[in-house]
Amino acid sequence: MQTLIELLHNKYRSLSTGKPASYIPELAKANAQDFAIVITTVNGEQFCAGDFDKQFTLQSTSKPFIYGMALAEYGREEVISKVGVEPTGEAFNSIVELEKRTHRPYNPMINSGAIAISSLIKGNNLKNRESNMMSMFEAFAGHQLEISNDVFESEKLTAHRNRSIAHLLRHFDVIDEKIDETLDLYFKQCSILVDTKDLSMMAATLANSGVNPNTKKSAIPSKYVGDVLSLMFTCGMYDSSGEWAYSIGVPAKSGVSGAIFGVVPGEFGIAVYSPPIDEKGHSTRGVEVFKEFSHECNLSIFRKTII
Amino acid sequence: MQTLIELLHNKYRSLSTGKPASYIPELAKANAQDFAIVITTVNGEQFCAGDFDKQFTLQSTSKPFIYGMALAEYGREEVISKVGVEPTGEAFNSIVELEKRTHRPYNPMINSGAIAISSLIKGNNLKNRESNMMSMFEAFAGHQLEISNDVFESEKLTAHRNRSIAHLLRHFDVIDEKIDETLDLYFKQCSILVDTKDLSMMAATLANSGVNPNTKKSAIPSKYVGDVLSLMFTCGMYDSSGEWAYSIGVPAKSGVSGAIFGVVPGEFGIAVYSPPIDEKGHSTRGVEVFKEFSHECNLSIFRKTII
Amino acid sequence: MQTLIELLHNKYRSLSTGKPASYIPELAKANAQDFAIVITTVNGEQFCAGDFDKQFTLQSTSKPFIYGMALAEYGREEVISKVGVEPTGEAFNSIVELEKRTHRPYNPMINSGAIAISSLIKGNNLKNRESNMMSMFEAFAGHQLEISNDVFESEKLTAHRNRSIAHLLRHFDVIDEKIDETLDLYFKQCSILVDTKDLSMMAATLANSGVNPNTKKSAIPSKYVGDVLSLMFTCGMYDSSGEWAYSIGVPAKSGVSGAIFGVVPGEFGIAVYSPPIDEKGHSTRGVEVFKEFSHECNLSIFRKTII
Amino acid sequence: MQTLIELLHNKYRSLSTGKPASYIPELAKANAQDFAIVITTVNGEQFCAGDFDKQFTLQSTSKPFIYGMALAEYGREEVISKVGVEPTGEAFNSIVELEKRTHRPYNPMINSGAIAISSLIKGNNLKNRESNMMSMFEAFAGHQLEISNDVFESEKLTAHRNRSIAHLLRHFDVIDEKIDETLDLYFKQCSILVDTKDLSMMAATLANSGVNPNTKKSAIPSKYVGDVLSLMFTCGMYDSSGEWAYSIGVPAKSGVSGAIFGVVPGEFGIAVYSPPIDEKGHSTRGVEVFKEFSHECNLSIFRKTII
Repeated sequence: MQTLIELLHNKYRSLSTGKPASYIPELAKANAQDFAIVITTVNGEQFCAGDFDKQFTLQSTSKPFIYGMALAEYGREEVISKVGVEPTGEAFNSIVELEKRTHRPYNPMINSGAIAISSLIKGNNLKNRESNMMSMFEAFAGHQLEISNDVFESEKLTAHRNRSIAHLLRHFDVIDEKIDETLDLYFKQCSILVDTKDLSMMAATLANSGVNPNTKKSAIPSKYVGDVLSLMFTCGMYDSSGEWAYSIGVPAKSGVSGAIFGVVPGEFGIAVYSPPIDEKGHSTRGVEVFKEFSHECNLSIFRKTII
Repeated sequence: MQTLIELLHNKYRSLSTGKPASYIPELAKANAQDFAIVITTVNGEQFCAGDFDKQFTLQSTSKPFIYGMALAEYGREEVISKVGVEPTGEAFNSIVELEKRTHRPYNPMINSGAIAISSLIKGNNLKNRESNMMSMFEAFAGHQLEISNDVFESEKLTAHRNRSIAHLLRHFDVIDEKIDETLDLYFKQCSILVDTKDLSMMAATLANSGVNPNTKKSAIPSKYVGDVLSLMFTCGMYDSSGEWAYSIGVPAKSGVSGAIFGVVPGEFGIAVYSPPIDEKGHSTRGVEVFKEFSHECNLSIFRKTII
Repeated sequence: MQTLIELLHNKYRSLSTGKPASYIPELAKANAQDFAIVITTVNGEQFCAGDFDKQFTLQSTSKPFIYGMALAEYGREEVISKVGVEPTGEAFNSIVELEKRTHRPYNPMINSGAIAISSLIKGNNLKNRESNMMSMFEAFAGHQLEISNDVFESEKLTAHRNRSIAHLLRHFDVIDEKIDETLDLYFKQCSILVDTKDLSMMAATLANSGVNPNTKKSAIPSKYVGDVLSLMFTCGMYDSSGEWAYSIGVPAKSGVSGAIFGVVPGEFGIAVYSPPIDEKGHSTRGVEVFKEFSHECNLSIFRKTII
Repeated sequence: MQTLIELLHNKYRSLSTGKPASYIPELAKANAQDFAIVITTVNGEQFCAGDFDKQFTLQSTSKPFIYGMALAEYGREEVISKVGVEPTGEAFNSIVELEKRTHRPYNPMINSGAIAISSLIKGNNLKNRESNMMSMFEAFAGHQLEISNDVFESEKLTAHRNRSIAHLLRHFDVIDEKIDETLDLYFKQCSILVDTKDLSMMAATLANSGVNPNTKKSAIPSKYVGDVLSLMFTCGMYDSSGEWAYSIGVPAKSGVSGAIFGVVPGEFGIAVYSPPIDEKGHSTRGVEVFKEFSHECNLSIFRKTII
């Protein structure tokens, strides 16, 4: 395993397609050379290559976790009444689908869905809600986490489209009147600082039925882990989710900071970090690593069972 | 297993929601009381309940098989250049998506995609191409199959929307000039007669890496079976594919004749037949049987691995 | 003329279709029985029937005037760079069109366009900008006007969709960062109090090349009056603009308060007020009065020239 | 008038933007240098500049005439039940709008609407229907007209999108089962040969309340001329109809052969012919000539009344 990821790291280090996300000024500052691969088994063993302790913000890779938290606190039925489970065929930040048909976000892996999910975080006030949210992320990571205030402020200032989505969700009565608080919670979860080892450990926690391999503590009830993985599989890679499911076949989620993580249930979690992203918002090196790794290890969920 | 499916058959026999498809006159003649459940293991063992030898036409349940045939004859790259692998978020007979973005059908599980795939069937003339197509379906079923001429003629007369789709595909140069022949092949595959035992055996052939459990003959190369299952999982149930993946978690395909089949790779195939369908085009009894069966047997692909 | 409008008033007084707009609480309080028709000639003569001095808020009938003001202050080229002049085929409060193609509102007669136009109102601060805006409306009406604070506050609290539109306009860089100020100006123009005589006079000012028939003062330069009328004709009645142009043939604009005004250039302005509106947002009595009035007086712009 | 059009002809002769339509092979053969302007007054006087007797096919400039014929034969109510009168905001050959909302073409100036209108042409068989159709066109032109068989065959072979539209119209029950006959009539009306003098005379017939200025014979009842002009004004220039209405302000219709004609009711008809077209399908020289001509002569319907 160590040999394989070093080989992949070496092979794709020189890949130069894509460029760091620029729509949030703070993200544009990322170093395009940064590149890390970390695998964490359900026993807590880690295999690392590259800049594995370089920090970045979760961005959309936070979405599966916050969705798991909502399921844990409200149960399936109530969560599904707010946010659907269907792929959209549209880009991650689309408003069209929301207006067109259901007046409910298609799924929790796109911005509109994650904003709606964020409105469900419990607590008496913003500080309290933020603290509850952080506890959940920390349970996945196995230790305390920080929020990048610079990224948070940068998101807050520039996220006009997300603000537009939030007001439309309010219009359709999907979220309550605390629009700014909900957006703050959403921007904060996007701004949580991790390194590739952390994200890989969080992925391994999902692979391990919700129990952190190191701390042995449960981050979310095991009965909701399948829900999270299912959504990651059908909707996690935005409008290339189908292609990902088809060619890579592993539940995964990407973020515009350049992170992608995948889960092989019962076995391990994988995280790749490399800032340059393609036009769909996925790390270009990350996509190649996942492709080759899945092929080498026969990970595709529908191909592995083939004799 | 036998006990379980009899129990489910008994329980849902009285379900009265939905009604037989009416848009093709021949389908409207179906008996709303017909109801069968058949499970076929990869060893060829069959468990049957209800009207398991009542015949019906494949309709859209033919789509995964014909897709497998195209992959076998042309390989992944060429097939994907014609038809994508993304879910649409739109209804099964939508034209909108086709026009809007890619000018290529989103996936082979919707009508536009299946028509494009049908244009790829090899042969010198219609008769020859039909014979090639039938051989593939018969390899899955393990014996000779017939086409219902009444249903074929009925489809041909009334399928204005499919004809519209075919001409638009021609316009975008996805299919060649033999539009009528392509449509004939498409209508014919929809009109193939099977009973629930046949469809269950065809599903078991997919579960068995493409090898028919009875005849031991390969219907399609094993390396493409994962492709077919992946597409069934993300796109097989039209615009409720996401919900199906989430709540049932088994690759499946439904047809407006009231058939649904599912595949548990390496284990078995399931087929349910019951003509009354819901507004999405799925057999109402079929959906309930699959839901409860998946729950009882813990089949969901992302939940079964949870400890 | 007096006879004709009294006849129409009498005839349609008992019409009971439609109901007052309910999406803003203040509007829902309107009396469904209120009904007024006023015609004002370019010489300032007025013909009145019904509750002609009952006050209501302008709502969307403000849009043509504020558009005229923007043209006067910035000229055609700059205004068109912000807001197009094409009908949409979509509802008045649609977001879809904005996202889909141009990233610029289709026209200034729908909410997104009018919000963009409102962002152009000049002034150092909100108070100053409001005062400039009011001066223009007052020049059309010929006397001082008030804003209903109750309606303004009611709009402000409930207009989540408009707030969503504003943030999307900001995202596409159509409006500047003073989003709340722009929305305040938009809500305020919607909340201007007039009676049917006022609105009719404002229409007559457009019929009179922008010069108020009473005060003889110019409200906007005559060279932009044709622009305003053209937009009213092709886009003034939302997604029934085509039908209105076809069957009534007079540039017009309606508002959800139940007001509709029309302009017969060089001759007169007409205003009808009656709160019950249809599902497109047009006063039901207003539509009937305009239909019959246009027919009786042969007003249709393309039919009047026919020998 | 003669001086003005010669001046415009001279000025725009060297304009080199746009290129002849290429989607029908026969149209691609057009000479990009051909350029003619003809004005015909309601008294039958003609002012000509350039290649005024060079022949071309009507293409979409046939649509207003065939619509007038349908109104004459069926009356407003029945025609409107088949085809609406709303602008679409979409391209001329769009299918999206048809599927999305009304299941009825938005208006008769786009392909779907004109195909639906063509299905209404009366007659016992194709030959008879064609003959009725030609009589109407000939009444507008004032003499016999021919159909270009080469263009007709070329259209028939390549018009997959129109064929797609026709089958969708059949699906929605807008047209009857004689799909091929309807398409033949549609392709034939597009293939009628005229020169710029003919088209200008046809325009003058509309300007003259439906009576040909030369023959003094009525082509369609005067009461439907306003309907035709209204539709040309709001929908005649496809998705730039709004801009045309705004900046030129004259009812007009363009065709991909490079023809545009406009009508100034009670005064004259104008036709311009020049094959190179822009991406919206309008003759590039034609657009410029109309713009300057409208401005010079103050033709804009809403500006001419301004003092």
